[in-house]
Amino acid sequence: MDQPLVNLRHVYEFEQGKYVEATTDVVAEYALTVFVNGQEFATLVCTPAKLQELVLGFIASEGLIITIDEVQSLEVNEESGMAYVQLHKNVEMNPDHFTKRYISSCCGKGRQSYYFYNDAQTLPILTEGPWLLPQQVIALVQQMQRHSTLFLNTGGVHNAALCDVSGILVAREDIGRHNALDKLYGYILQNRVPVTDKVMVFSGRISSEVLLKVAKMGIGILLSKSAPTELALRMADDLGITAVGFVRGERFKVYTHPRRILL
Amino acid sequence: MDQPLVNLRHVYEFEQGKYVEATTDVVAEYALTVFVNGQEFATLVCTPAKLQELVLGFIASEGLIITIDEVQSLEVNEESGMAYVQLHKNVEMNPDHFTKRYISSCCGKGRQSYYFYNDAQTLPILTEGPWLLPQQVIALVQQMQRHSTLFLNTGGVHNAALCDVSGILVAREDIGRHNALDKLYGYILQNRVPVTDKVMVFSGRISSEVLLKVAKMGIGILLSKSAPTELALRMADDLGITAVGFVRGERFKVYTHPRRILL
Repeated sequence: MDQPLVNLRHVYEFEQGKYVEATTDVVAEYALTVFVNGQEFATLVCTPAKLQELVLGFIASEGLIITIDEVQSLEVNEESGMAYVQLHKNVEMNPDHFTKRYISSCCGKGRQSYYFYNDAQTLPILTEGPWLLPQQVIALVQQMQRHSTLFLNTGGVHNAALCDVSGILVAREDIGRHNALDKLYGYILQNRVPVTDKVMVFSGRISSEVLLKVAKMGIGILLSKSAPTELALRMADDLGITAVGFVRGERFKVYTHPRRILL
Repeated sequence: MDQPLVNLRHVYEFEQGKYVEATTDVVAEYALTVFVNGQEFATLVCTPAKLQELVLGFIASEGLIITIDEVQSLEVNEESGMAYVQLHKNVEMNPDHFTKRYISSCCGKGRQSYYFYNDAQTLPILTEGPWLLPQQVIALVQQMQRHSTLFLNTGGVHNAALCDVSGILVAREDIGRHNALDKLYGYILQNRVPVTDKVMVFSGRISSEVLLKVAKMGIGILLSKSAPTELALRMADDLGITAVGFVRGERFKVYTHPRRILL
């Protein structure tokens, strides 16, 4: 069974000063767990196309193989999200020796719906959070972009800004997209910042991991210049988070819980 | 000792049809190994600013703490790249339960220079590789951008293209930047593609992990629309790889081994 690469979503698009209802493509986010010689090796979060190539290239990148002749068999089960590699040789898989791209451990049954849900299910559903006018959405993203000095000089970093409706409270930047958010999470904890009236603005894609981080912080609105993934939006649906993507110029798309962006 | 956030680099900038020598800022890439209750927990690849916040936010994201009151002490040693967290409680750190952002295990002494070098030192230095004219650099990146249909529709993916001097041989896209490259690596292995005349074109940042992947594939030229990191460029220096960044419109910057981009 082929996995869909994109899904259609109903959104509210803001453009030329008003909202229009529309449908839009959202990219899939798929989890593939790789077993090598019967042992769980890694879970890759990926686009579900060319998965055999992905598994081969990944185990080569990790140094398990150098040529394809070392592979006895490779089977990908797209429906269950599992890939099974059998090598001709034994490999010692000391987990400390490899780059990990695990997401989380899981019981082994159909990870597609569950692999982040251990995490998501422990989180409260956000019912509060501030309301924003469309002009405030646009202004907050513009402020973050003006604020990012390291980006302007080097072009190499992601930005995140903790805001309230009136502007940026604190902004952080990092070459790792998750790190910029983690720094703000650390700031919130260190300074015991109340979060129910806060908005997170982020330069990168809204992946499920990004969405979960914002949910853990307890923040109800996430604004991004970039695109969301389908899995992130399903979590935003469930967790009560307003996800707004493609905030560019005077336009944006509201994907989930539009009640916080006044219509 | 504060770590530098950016480093100056000597580059060849191609613009308005000719090369100019220039210096340019390149963003740092720093590895911070986090120990929790005396046990190694993760290595974060990051921008070396606000590292206390990063560590706090990271362990909160991973579910080790919910409030700062659970932290007994937190010490960051910027010089050695180590952070030590002591919690008031014991935590069971089953590695399977956490998102890993390890890079590779290491002997514990000053990771900044070593943490990828286990890997890098096993690689041969690339002395071959094709030569490209400036117009070919520009054309290959433009071809990759035109080729990326999923990106055009959803805005959510990274692209990588395996090319020779005359154009794209195969292109892959994925929500994970490393996955797009791994898929091409898998393609190369499956089809036993000779690589000495190949060029890799990539939409994302040239991080050390990206650079190492390309080196493992045995490809001598890496072109990117985005910025490189300083650590990636040090590796490119050592491994004989020509790294070209900021290929945008009719402009680009050659960071390392310019001999392959004909002057």
